[in-house]
Amino acid sequence: MAEPVFAGQPYAGIATFGRAPHRIDPSGADVAILGVPYDSSTSYRAGARFGPRAIREQSLLLWGYNNVQQVAPFRSLELVDCGDVDVVPPDIRATHLQIELAADRILSTDAKLLTLGGDHSISLPLLRAHARKYGPLALVHFDAHPDTWDSEYPNQPYSHGTPFKRAFEEGLIDKSACLQLGIRGPTNGPQDYTDAIDLGCRMITLEEFRGRTIPDVIREMRTTLGTRPTYVSLDIDVVDPAFAPGTGTPEVGGLTSYEILQLIRGLRGVNTIGFDLVEVSPPYDHSGITSILAANLAFEFLSLLVR
Amino acid sequence: MAEPVFAGQPYAGIATFGRAPHRIDPSGADVAILGVPYDSSTSYRAGARFGPRAIREQSLLLWGYNNVQQVAPFRSLELVDCGDVDVVPPDIRATHLQIELAADRILSTDAKLLTLGGDHSISLPLLRAHARKYGPLALVHFDAHPDTWDSEYPNQPYSHGTPFKRAFEEGLIDKSACLQLGIRGPTNGPQDYTDAIDLGCRMITLEEFRGRTIPDVIREMRTTLGTRPTYVSLDIDVVDPAFAPGTGTPEVGGLTSYEILQLIRGLRGVNTIGFDLVEVSPPYDHSGITSILAANLAFEFLSLLVR
Amino acid sequence: MAEPVFAGQPYAGIATFGRAPHRIDPSGADVAILGVPYDSSTSYRAGARFGPRAIREQSLLLWGYNNVQQVAPFRSLELVDCGDVDVVPPDIRATHLQIELAADRILSTDAKLLTLGGDHSISLPLLRAHARKYGPLALVHFDAHPDTWDSEYPNQPYSHGTPFKRAFEEGLIDKSACLQLGIRGPTNGPQDYTDAIDLGCRMITLEEFRGRTIPDVIREMRTTLGTRPTYVSLDIDVVDPAFAPGTGTPEVGGLTSYEILQLIRGLRGVNTIGFDLVEVSPPYDHSGITSILAANLAFEFLSLLVR
Amino acid sequence: MAEPVFAGQPYAGIATFGRAPHRIDPSGADVAILGVPYDSSTSYRAGARFGPRAIREQSLLLWGYNNVQQVAPFRSLELVDCGDVDVVPPDIRATHLQIELAADRILSTDAKLLTLGGDHSISLPLLRAHARKYGPLALVHFDAHPDTWDSEYPNQPYSHGTPFKRAFEEGLIDKSACLQLGIRGPTNGPQDYTDAIDLGCRMITLEEFRGRTIPDVIREMRTTLGTRPTYVSLDIDVVDPAFAPGTGTPEVGGLTSYEILQLIRGLRGVNTIGFDLVEVSPPYDHSGITSILAANLAFEFLSLLVR
Amino acid sequence: MAEPVFAGQPYAGIATFGRAPHRIDPSGADVAILGVPYDSSTSYRAGARFGPRAIREQSLLLWGYNNVQQVAPFRSLELVDCGDVDVVPPDIRATHLQIELAADRILSTDAKLLTLGGDHSISLPLLRAHARKYGPLALVHFDAHPDTWDSEYPNQPYSHGTPFKRAFEEGLIDKSACLQLGIRGPTNGPQDYTDAIDLGCRMITLEEFRGRTIPDVIREMRTTLGTRPTYVSLDIDVVDPAFAPGTGTPEVGGLTSYEILQLIRGLRGVNTIGFDLVEVSPPYDHSGITSILAANLAFEFLSLLVR
Amino acid sequence: MAEPVFAGQPYAGIATFGRAPHRIDPSGADVAILGVPYDSSTSYRAGARFGPRAIREQSLLLWGYNNVQQVAPFRSLELVDCGDVDVVPPDIRATHLQIELAADRILSTDAKLLTLGGDHSISLPLLRAHARKYGPLALVHFDAHPDTWDSEYPNQPYSHGTPFKRAFEEGLIDKSACLQLGIRGPTNGPQDYTDAIDLGCRMITLEEFRGRTIPDVIREMRTTLGTRPTYVSLDIDVVDPAFAPGTGTPEVGGLTSYEILQLIRGLRGVNTIGFDLVEVSPPYDHSGITSILAANLAFEFLSLLVR
Repeated sequence: MAEPVFAGQPYAGIATFGRAPHRIDPSGADVAILGVPYDSSTSYRAGARFGPRAIREQSLLLWGYNNVQQVAPFRSLELVDCGDVDVVPPDIRATHLQIELAADRILSTDAKLLTLGGDHSISLPLLRAHARKYGPLALVHFDAHPDTWDSEYPNQPYSHGTPFKRAFEEGLIDKSACLQLGIRGPTNGPQDYTDAIDLGCRMITLEEFRGRTIPDVIREMRTTLGTRPTYVSLDIDVVDPAFAPGTGTPEVGGLTSYEILQLIRGLRGVNTIGFDLVEVSPPYDHSGITSILAANLAFEFLSLLVR
Repeated sequence: MAEPVFAGQPYAGIATFGRAPHRIDPSGADVAILGVPYDSSTSYRAGARFGPRAIREQSLLLWGYNNVQQVAPFRSLELVDCGDVDVVPPDIRATHLQIELAADRILSTDAKLLTLGGDHSISLPLLRAHARKYGPLALVHFDAHPDTWDSEYPNQPYSHGTPFKRAFEEGLIDKSACLQLGIRGPTNGPQDYTDAIDLGCRMITLEEFRGRTIPDVIREMRTTLGTRPTYVSLDIDVVDPAFAPGTGTPEVGGLTSYEILQLIRGLRGVNTIGFDLVEVSPPYDHSGITSILAANLAFEFLSLLVR
Repeated sequence: MAEPVFAGQPYAGIATFGRAPHRIDPSGADVAILGVPYDSSTSYRAGARFGPRAIREQSLLLWGYNNVQQVAPFRSLELVDCGDVDVVPPDIRATHLQIELAADRILSTDAKLLTLGGDHSISLPLLRAHARKYGPLALVHFDAHPDTWDSEYPNQPYSHGTPFKRAFEEGLIDKSACLQLGIRGPTNGPQDYTDAIDLGCRMITLEEFRGRTIPDVIREMRTTLGTRPTYVSLDIDVVDPAFAPGTGTPEVGGLTSYEILQLIRGLRGVNTIGFDLVEVSPPYDHSGITSILAANLAFEFLSLLVR
Repeated sequence: MAEPVFAGQPYAGIATFGRAPHRIDPSGADVAILGVPYDSSTSYRAGARFGPRAIREQSLLLWGYNNVQQVAPFRSLELVDCGDVDVVPPDIRATHLQIELAADRILSTDAKLLTLGGDHSISLPLLRAHARKYGPLALVHFDAHPDTWDSEYPNQPYSHGTPFKRAFEEGLIDKSACLQLGIRGPTNGPQDYTDAIDLGCRMITLEEFRGRTIPDVIREMRTTLGTRPTYVSLDIDVVDPAFAPGTGTPEVGGLTSYEILQLIRGLRGVNTIGFDLVEVSPPYDHSGITSILAANLAFEFLSLLVR
Repeated sequence: MAEPVFAGQPYAGIATFGRAPHRIDPSGADVAILGVPYDSSTSYRAGARFGPRAIREQSLLLWGYNNVQQVAPFRSLELVDCGDVDVVPPDIRATHLQIELAADRILSTDAKLLTLGGDHSISLPLLRAHARKYGPLALVHFDAHPDTWDSEYPNQPYSHGTPFKRAFEEGLIDKSACLQLGIRGPTNGPQDYTDAIDLGCRMITLEEFRGRTIPDVIREMRTTLGTRPTYVSLDIDVVDPAFAPGTGTPEVGGLTSYEILQLIRGLRGVNTIGFDLVEVSPPYDHSGITSILAANLAFEFLSLLVR
Repeated sequence: MAEPVFAGQPYAGIATFGRAPHRIDPSGADVAILGVPYDSSTSYRAGARFGPRAIREQSLLLWGYNNVQQVAPFRSLELVDCGDVDVVPPDIRATHLQIELAADRILSTDAKLLTLGGDHSISLPLLRAHARKYGPLALVHFDAHPDTWDSEYPNQPYSHGTPFKRAFEEGLIDKSACLQLGIRGPTNGPQDYTDAIDLGCRMITLEEFRGRTIPDVIREMRTTLGTRPTYVSLDIDVVDPAFAPGTGTPEVGGLTSYEILQLIRGLRGVNTIGFDLVEVSPPYDHSGITSILAANLAFEFLSLLVR
């Protein structure tokens, strides 16, 4: 009997990231994909809980060879899709504990971790797990917002506007190598910027970025990061809502999709050791363009890991 | 100088419920509208945080006279819109406390309370506040799901699948006068139904309902409730997704919009003392048909209060 | 180290049907799920290629116990999700061959087959494979259209309007036990109905159905089918577009979601040996209500198989 | 050289109604289709200006033979599509004059007129033209609202809530043969109903309709209309928003698509001499289900004209 | 009893612009917000009647401090939201009169006026009211279209394509200080441009803009306007449909959101005395990105008024 | 009797391209518009079958005068809309034959051909027909993908990823004058680019384009093409999904709408003899922005033909 062929086209088959095998234990893999479908700490629109699934689906469009970085991550890297952390929507502390446990488990192997959010609060437990392994981390943070508030709700230290404040307090970030890029829009006051800078962020606002060239900005990033173990956190709202409408707190006047792609590609050679990509909210997307962009950004992340 | 005329058409002006005055203090009012934009405890889709705003907007379509109940609630009742409770997305206990405080404050006046959700977890603090004033409550609960789970997430007593279990445990509900109507769809096992029944619910499943006439079901409801102070909790997913797509856990095979209208109208004469209308999720609605239905149901609730 | 918990909520984790294991070889399973993401032969709107994925996703909402049939198919049956056939969009014959090979392979084991389409042309290779195993099949065909045209395009025997004509010609259907239910809407002429009837269909039009009771129709179905091995083919457009907008050729005036659920439940005890559920077109759906209905119908099919 | 074949499938070719020839002069035709893309007098949502185009597109789905009325209107009737009246959005009087001129011109031939709206204000000039030809008209008016207000805006006699008040005043309607069916929902007061009744309407509210059978209602319609020349005006909002979301003032609790189809079919044998189908608003539709329903209703209208 | 906290997050509470108090009488305020929900004079798509409500809702996302202009308008200015003018959809003259009366009333106080449309026809009565107070106005007009047609419909001097032609004729605009920026796309002929220029517009087409730098264009604007009292009229279609899909006559090849923000910021120091922001059409928006942009532009306008 | 005026506004009347007369025989015309509603060979999303209709509708927004090219194509050219080829969805060879016949017939007259797709596979029969008339063609190919695969499905030479491979093999393209612009995104490997280059394509990737100026790229195009008869094939996915979401295989990081407009305008003076515009997929569009862009690009094509 002839053998039927299964799967193939992007709309076909079970959707793991890049058709990587689905396995909870990442032992032996170079990179583990982990989804965190948690969005209960957003300050405007929820929906990022559907982010990991949507990004996985659109990842099937990624043919495999990166013509700019000139590498083939799906072939050169052993990839595994660990599925999603089992989150606890009404309890952020319990959720963060789950995330930290899952990340610890993955990082106890040789695998690097690429996490798909979920809202930005999830970066805190991820930074904890990575810092536990690597020490204080160099950080590249792409975002429209500093996310360094002390508190977004009365007596609530944890939410999607505070992760980096907490991370600095907990000593997870190397203050000499922390860059924020894309910051823009109204804030509560000038202190929202100065607080971030005082914590140790080199903040490149959108307006500063527009006054420079992309290569110039990349040069600064690379100089600052040097060979330090570098964690990359990308909030999709760093991109303009025209290119990424599917997000929780859209901020107009942002990056184009081309610019964010080039900025990530500019990290080639940097010692990147972990990534998260957060705030993709499919209920507010249209025709999946935000998820498609996110899948491509994840692909660029993976490409960076191919030496 | 001639006077310009302000507001008027349904798309015009500031949207309070039925153009009621917006006032935090309901003193002197017959009915207070309160929004609770909380949705962090949903088990599938969030978005009900936008429910109160959407229902207010569509309430402007309500011309004012109820031709079936033959009353004009906006003219016969002093109505006030208290706005929304300030919820705490990442902390359900803090949120419930806020709700309870707001409800207590309103119920300390002569105003009845009509609450617009939000996910179904909010019924628990609302029942607490009402039971504090009225004693154990007769309950009419329209829903596709019993919401009497003991726990939906490990170690989490509070979420949108557990409010009535907690309410029974806390003695807030009169076990001799609790009706659930519209229950249907798959459950974890037969015990999901028997547990609710054991707690004291008279469960009228969708299938039982379809085998009877509406007047017959109304007759049973009225007989059971008698003159007891009765709280009505309506989860919009009691209605079929064709009529109410904008909800968090859609369950096929449900009521039509006409049927739910008739069932509410059937409560005329019952001693209704409080209402909530929950799980309207505008991001999943289309053309506002779910919010329009919800606004009409709220209008029927108000009509019941006109003696 | 404490163990993190993975997956759980409906929005979390890798989406196989009902979280069944994904395995191409169904040996040892009671039921195999197979997706056929092919839609190149539709006469109006395409998009059914995304049907299998959407139905799988919404299947995660199915708690597990069927309260009407009173069985728990996910616990009582060994289920396996074989993923999707690798279709060939520009070539219907090559696609049908792939489908037939995949179905043959599954039917060579003890597993029953539940196929998720895809457009209705896929029923022909599925009927071939089933008839090869079981002989001429009793057929229950839910649809708005007879799909017994001789040809929809010049010189093209295969397309989504012709599968049952071909199946009768090839002797795959038992003419004494073929029911069509839900047929309605304009046709090319009266011969579209008489042709189907002449082939051997007992056609219950929508108008006839509305003049009878559901139990009466179920009685006729059961009498006709007797103990014959029965294949069920369900085109989602048998349901009204209000309840199932996500389909390729919507036909107004159709069944409600409750009615189709009851009709399937009415097959309990019939010797059903195979199922397909076709023409779910997610690009035309809203908020997944069509896919949710389809997932529930698949759940009813599985429940029928639990003795 | 072989001849290429043009047009064919529903998505192909230039969209006239039912592929009728596009000709401004209807001489020689049995029926003329006329679009009136005017929506400036709606009280809630606009968008009905796109109604005629959307209905034409979906009319291409109508295969041609009406299996219930058992006639083939596209073959039995000479049909012509006159295109759209050139309306004047900021001036309702100028628009109405255009409509009246266009209708007069068509009615000066032997063609019957089937008009696709547009908001309901357009019925007034259409009634004028028809009454000029036929004398006072028997009227069947399907709608959620009586549309017999005296005025919707200060000093504005013309708008989509007033056409039938004006028509009665102008003597265009035969008071002994005017039926309104489907009326429901809140109004300004009880006088909104009594005013309509006082004008001469036999008002069958939705609630009355639900208490009777369809054949019984059809019987009353036929008895009332007798052999009088009868104009049919159908506001799509007579149908529930689940079945017809694409409309300007959705009213919950309405008819199903099956019910409205049956009611129209019930007019078979009545001396229908003109039709309008109004308030289809494509921007608020989803997947065209409202336009598809409207196209089918227009098809039923045409079928009535085949003797 | 502890005090519950009301309102707060962007999705919570009654939506006035920036949570300004809702008061018809603006006495004592620095700026009055006025909505004009009129769209009956659009030449393509309606829907701008929902513009004011949508912009108010999205204004709740504006944290309060403008990091580029370095001012905090909500704190530095006394703001009042006057609600919406009561428009008359079928009668543009009556509507314009209402607008003019409302504007006059506001301008009779010390408040500046920021108007949210509505279609562009509303600028004419607004210019009348402002010119009555300030004399002929310097004008900055951001738009894809000149809007200086003599007439868009036969014998109709007023519509959304003619306001500036009328304004020039009525002497409301200072011909030495009128700039149009962003003009592009097909027109009826070359005279559409030359007519505008002949009236006195300095037209900076999109193509000219792309050949210059933003600072250079700002320099020209500032030089031209000098210290004249300047009115700013912004049609959202000056922005590309990718960034502002929710508008009535989308014109491809337009500004980015960043560019329009920078252009408005470039007016800092100019003697701006009034603003309108028109043609935001929410039914054609997705995920509110157009309304979010409009809210940010209004925020920039307000920031300009903080000295 | 006064004459009513028909048609006019963009939402009114029967939609042919630019209101050109609908005539199958283009004799006497300068340009023929032809739709090809075929999308069965797409590798991801279908829907392009609705492209021709949507582009025709949005073409009614094109006022008529091209202010950049300074010509009025609708007045200067005799235009005819030939409607759509009657395609055969399940059979690509039969479809291609239909296309080739239709194109041959048109090209046997003096009319130039502008074809609206449909998926990109349709370019092959179009190139055949044009090369039959003009000899090997210079080609400008705007696309995100080279479309020079040898085969996309086993044993299938024809599909939307292979047309230019086949065209080179068949000698339809002049290898000395073939430009591809906008290529980007992941591919199967580096050979996807080198294969195209080896076939004879001058490939200007998106990244190369971003490093140059538009005039510089235009200069290269003009130099390469010289006076050769030049065919232009434009896949709308050359534009970024922010500007053109409605397409089958969206590729992030693409051109803006302004850039593609300028590139087409840069072809002025080139000897363009045929055009196709493909892969516009309306089901994935929002508010028609992709179709509006496509209509404008078609308008620029037509403008090129006005000498």
